[in-house]
Amino acid sequence: MKNPLIKPGDNPDITKERLAGTFDIRQMGSFLYGGDEVLQRRTKILEFVKSIPELHDPFPVDFMTREERVENVARKVVAMTNYVDFIDTSDFFGEGMYFQRLIMRRDLHPLSLHFVMFLPTIQGQGEDDQLDEWLSLVAARGIIGTYAQTELGHGTNLKNLETTATYDPKTEEFVLHSPTITSAKWWPGALGKSSNYAVVVAQLYTQGVCRGPHPFIVQIRDLETHKPLKGIRVGDIGPKFGFNSADNGFLLFDNYRIPRQNMLMRYSKVEKNGTFIAPKHSKLSYGTMVFVRSIMVKDQATFLAEAVCIAIRYSAIRRQGEIEPGAGEVQILDYQTQQFRLFPQLARAFAFMFAAYEIRDLHMKVSEQLTEGNVDLLPEIHALSSGLKAVITWEAAQGIEQCRLACGGHGYSLASAFPDIYTFAVAGCTYEGENIVLLLQMARFLMKAAEEVRGGKARLAAICEYLTKPNSLHSRFTSCSDYSDADIIHDFEHIARKQVFRAYDVLKRHRRETSAEEGWNRASIELCKASRAHVRLYLVRTFLEKVATAKDASIRAPLTDLTRLYAFDLITTSLGEFLKDGFISDAQSDEIRQGIYRCLQRLRPNAVSLVDSWDFDDFELHSVLGRRDGNVYPALLEWAQMSQLNKTEVLPTFEKYLGPMMKESRSKL
Amino acid sequence: MKNPLIKPGDNPDITKERLAGTFDIRQMGSFLYGGDEVLQRRTKILEFVKSIPELHDPFPVDFMTREERVENVARKVVAMTNYVDFIDTSDFFGEGMYFQRLIMRRDLHPLSLHFVMFLPTIQGQGEDDQLDEWLSLVAARGIIGTYAQTELGHGTNLKNLETTATYDPKTEEFVLHSPTITSAKWWPGALGKSSNYAVVVAQLYTQGVCRGPHPFIVQIRDLETHKPLKGIRVGDIGPKFGFNSADNGFLLFDNYRIPRQNMLMRYSKVEKNGTFIAPKHSKLSYGTMVFVRSIMVKDQATFLAEAVCIAIRYSAIRRQGEIEPGAGEVQILDYQTQQFRLFPQLARAFAFMFAAYEIRDLHMKVSEQLTEGNVDLLPEIHALSSGLKAVITWEAAQGIEQCRLACGGHGYSLASAFPDIYTFAVAGCTYEGENIVLLLQMARFLMKAAEEVRGGKARLAAICEYLTKPNSLHSRFTSCSDYSDADIIHDFEHIARKQVFRAYDVLKRHRRETSAEEGWNRASIELCKASRAHVRLYLVRTFLEKVATAKDASIRAPLTDLTRLYAFDLITTSLGEFLKDGFISDAQSDEIRQGIYRCLQRLRPNAVSLVDSWDFDDFELHSVLGRRDGNVYPALLEWAQMSQLNKTEVLPTFEKYLGPMMKESRSKL
Repeated sequence: MKNPLIKPGDNPDITKERLAGTFDIRQMGSFLYGGDEVLQRRTKILEFVKSIPELHDPFPVDFMTREERVENVARKVVAMTNYVDFIDTSDFFGEGMYFQRLIMRRDLHPLSLHFVMFLPTIQGQGEDDQLDEWLSLVAARGIIGTYAQTELGHGTNLKNLETTATYDPKTEEFVLHSPTITSAKWWPGALGKSSNYAVVVAQLYTQGVCRGPHPFIVQIRDLETHKPLKGIRVGDIGPKFGFNSADNGFLLFDNYRIPRQNMLMRYSKVEKNGTFIAPKHSKLSYGTMVFVRSIMVKDQATFLAEAVCIAIRYSAIRRQGEIEPGAGEVQILDYQTQQFRLFPQLARAFAFMFAAYEIRDLHMKVSEQLTEGNVDLLPEIHALSSGLKAVITWEAAQGIEQCRLACGGHGYSLASAFPDIYTFAVAGCTYEGENIVLLLQMARFLMKAAEEVRGGKARLAAICEYLTKPNSLHSRFTSCSDYSDADIIHDFEHIARKQVFRAYDVLKRHRRETSAEEGWNRASIELCKASRAHVRLYLVRTFLEKVATAKDASIRAPLTDLTRLYAFDLITTSLGEFLKDGFISDAQSDEIRQGIYRCLQRLRPNAVSLVDSWDFDDFELHSVLGRRDGNVYPALLEWAQMSQLNKTEVLPTFEKYLGPMMKESRSKL
Repeated sequence: MKNPLIKPGDNPDITKERLAGTFDIRQMGSFLYGGDEVLQRRTKILEFVKSIPELHDPFPVDFMTREERVENVARKVVAMTNYVDFIDTSDFFGEGMYFQRLIMRRDLHPLSLHFVMFLPTIQGQGEDDQLDEWLSLVAARGIIGTYAQTELGHGTNLKNLETTATYDPKTEEFVLHSPTITSAKWWPGALGKSSNYAVVVAQLYTQGVCRGPHPFIVQIRDLETHKPLKGIRVGDIGPKFGFNSADNGFLLFDNYRIPRQNMLMRYSKVEKNGTFIAPKHSKLSYGTMVFVRSIMVKDQATFLAEAVCIAIRYSAIRRQGEIEPGAGEVQILDYQTQQFRLFPQLARAFAFMFAAYEIRDLHMKVSEQLTEGNVDLLPEIHALSSGLKAVITWEAAQGIEQCRLACGGHGYSLASAFPDIYTFAVAGCTYEGENIVLLLQMARFLMKAAEEVRGGKARLAAICEYLTKPNSLHSRFTSCSDYSDADIIHDFEHIARKQVFRAYDVLKRHRRETSAEEGWNRASIELCKASRAHVRLYLVRTFLEKVATAKDASIRAPLTDLTRLYAFDLITTSLGEFLKDGFISDAQSDEIRQGIYRCLQRLRPNAVSLVDSWDFDDFELHSVLGRRDGNVYPALLEWAQMSQLNKTEVLPTFEKYLGPMMKESRSKL
């Protein structure tokens, strides 16, 4: 069962690990990514990108100034989009994301929002004439657009956006205006310097009446000179925790006029004389949000897996301390505490990845149903995707930090790639819906479901069906080895159901005592807990069901260990919920803890092979600690040579400050 | 009870909060920092630093390149040390840290290790002649030194350091050599570019025998030219997650010779002919380590408090969403979920700060006892300081990230200061002893104590005395309002005792089944849990005891709410431990959850006043979100103007890449 990553000259410790693996990593990779052809396409795309120097960084971005980084991605994105025909662009979830990740590393670029928000918004909200006018221009990159909705003082609550678009029937124009500082558009990617167009969301006023927020296509910079147009104030919002190749921007309007035709009019319309025509049917944009979130879940799973890959490979070659005296320093992967830090993250990465594929499939199913006018599944899937995004982004971020910390000092260096991965991943907790807001969104659905169940008229899809089942008194756990998939699901269903109805009862009580709204606020911690319990049940079930489909025993065995570790770890980290009402006994909880230790021991020999299965090339990983060959130390020294500070032997600080200080002090002694 | 921070022109929302506070923030600050005079000295030091432009940044460091940051701190540190007579340098814990923080923000500088490691090592390890030769030169800053111990391949385990110092009796010199890449000294602060000297720890060889690691004073750069000396290879290790003003460095020796007199010979000696004289008594350096950790605990408490201060002030002025429809957007601080994110961090900040003072006092007590030859308390305090460092650094880091996330998108901008605070604080999990290593160090002490208790011959100081108490069957909890300090301590003692003896039993069993060493490894997760439970008990007790000394009821009341929130939060986050064996009942656990919600409500009106009490001036906080005046939005817009990318209206990316791409595309349509 030789691992194809083994090569001559590799660090012997990592080769030893690969030789110890009990399964074929290509087979595991194929199971993970959905088939051999997918793996083969990955290899082809990788080779292609490696073969085109235009798509590479001239030197590691870690050593670039912000200006250099911004310039580097602008150069690369033009090349990337020139070469885009090499991939199947209809498969953004698979090929698109992989291609972009290989070229852009973990950063954004001037066209990030152009293709993900600007183009789709025009497609979705433009009427036919507008599509004719704009689509080919936008698709061909004849202009660069972004999506400007969030304002300096307004995020989640769109109703309160302050930017106004007032219709002037005399000139048949909208006047865009930013009445306050808080109304400045703030955060849109590529708005600061790169874009010359934006879809701007503003409060529409016609005939003296506010008609609520609507989208407008707005030119912000001159096509020839790229200077901001008169009435426009635009710029970069400054450096951030991560994403520093991106020019997230601000935008202020001073009575800036655009033609009437620039309002996107597929749904609402404003006629020449200013008459407002309200939309006939509400917009069904849920589907796109579900798709975007399936992308995010996959992204986060990948980030976490990259971090675990780096940490486990490094832990295999790092030797430190002795367990048995005189036996020499051990691989730090042999320490139980190190395994306990890393292996649950490995389990999580698999669980999240399988959930990403599952959500993508659900999205496709829902999209099909939608074309037939069937919207039954939509609210449930939409709620689920909100909760999943919230739970996964947070757990991935925490897991990445655990991996970094497990690598000691070297984890803190940019050479490890952890800081890059963390700052990118953790941003996911905030964008595309702040996590707490999303958990509460999911809770609204769960409370409606609970209400229906209590009323005896629930019509729930498979995901929430457990809410209709009768309560259980006891866990089905007898021993770790006999704890079947069905038993585990049964137990997690119990915990989720209990918390959903607990939150429901708390909510009802508070609503009786206060008001519907204040009652919601006072129940909100319980509501978030309910959403989390629901999502965790979903993740456990999806993980178990997916692993059960693995035909080959050699890959099913380590995956099963991962499912157990995942479930046992979830149980012990929310042990209070499981012990309550005697659902599990003290003795059972002790056995589950023991079960974790046994899972760690069983996974230990396959740890490197499991991360190898994710098929991360060094070109993608960009991590000195996570190198395939395990030859970390010479590479760290080489990386350090590139430091900005090493360009000169003696820094100006010596002549200017430190030298005179020392000289003067010595002269006085 | 007017808050002195209220000023005309402030954001009305923050003024409203300050008017609602029920206590005098100066009185609270005095209780926190240990007296009115301390607060007055803080004000004097602040005014002094504000009055000296040399000590300021020319513009926010957020907008500087790494080279500019390095130069900026070199300039400031010379000025800072020139002005050091303004403060009482014997009070590093108080005045020294405050003075340095005001000037250096959250970063290191070229003399960070010079004063904290280089000078103290010479003082502690040098014999009298060496003190005469070096001390005044070092103290006067005639040279800049650092401390080079950690190597590229070797951190915690000093025994395995690879750098050699071989004595050559012919020339009466030591030959320093780096035999491998992994032997490169790696990480020491200011080693890369600033220092011209270092204390280097190397394996001493004399007369063909290795005598273990010893410290040597080594010149690495020429005093006049600052060029590295022949046989020395030195440089910066490259950019990091944080600390990017610091030139952490690497150092390699190629048979580099230093005089025999440069070995620090207070304990071990090498005579002219190469005879090695072993130390007469072991080195008692525990005391210094305890002091360094008390500093770290205070630092971490301050970081966490800064983060909470920023998040709470911002949450008071940020309005978003409605609770009651039509009542207007609410301050986000009114959301229960926001309170639940922030207030437990506020409680933690107070708990950690009180623990820092307590540990400093213990250190002083132990130091006194040491001068009388009494070492009784030392092992216990040393163990405690290890565990405290581990628990506090991790919880502070997590808390800071919670604060950042609670501020949404703006928390992600460097303008918030959160990224700066987080990357600095979280590094504390790794330096000065990696956290897991430290938890296990503390566990060694606890296992010895448990062994003694089981053997009936324990002689433990107050901190561990609870281990000798009989087990309790039930919690003393009756209701949240009746849960006295003594009851809470009783219950946390029970949990800690149970886990310590559980770990002890697991350890014994594994040792019987395997070996002493492998048994330790297999019990190590349980051992870490025991250390954490012990530290949490210590933190709860210290917090309660300190608050009980508050004489004024107006400050004792909100502090008592914080102690309850702290304890209840700890109970619910490790609910499994409390529910086990029926120590608390399900009904009690529900009441404790309710107790948390009530604490949040009670603390809400005092939230801003509580963070105001920490006496963080805007000059210290460097946070646009956390401004005293609450006028965040105009300041964010102003801050963004300084972005590197806003220096020119049109970036070169347009001419070079994006412009031609768009033009070409448009020409083809």
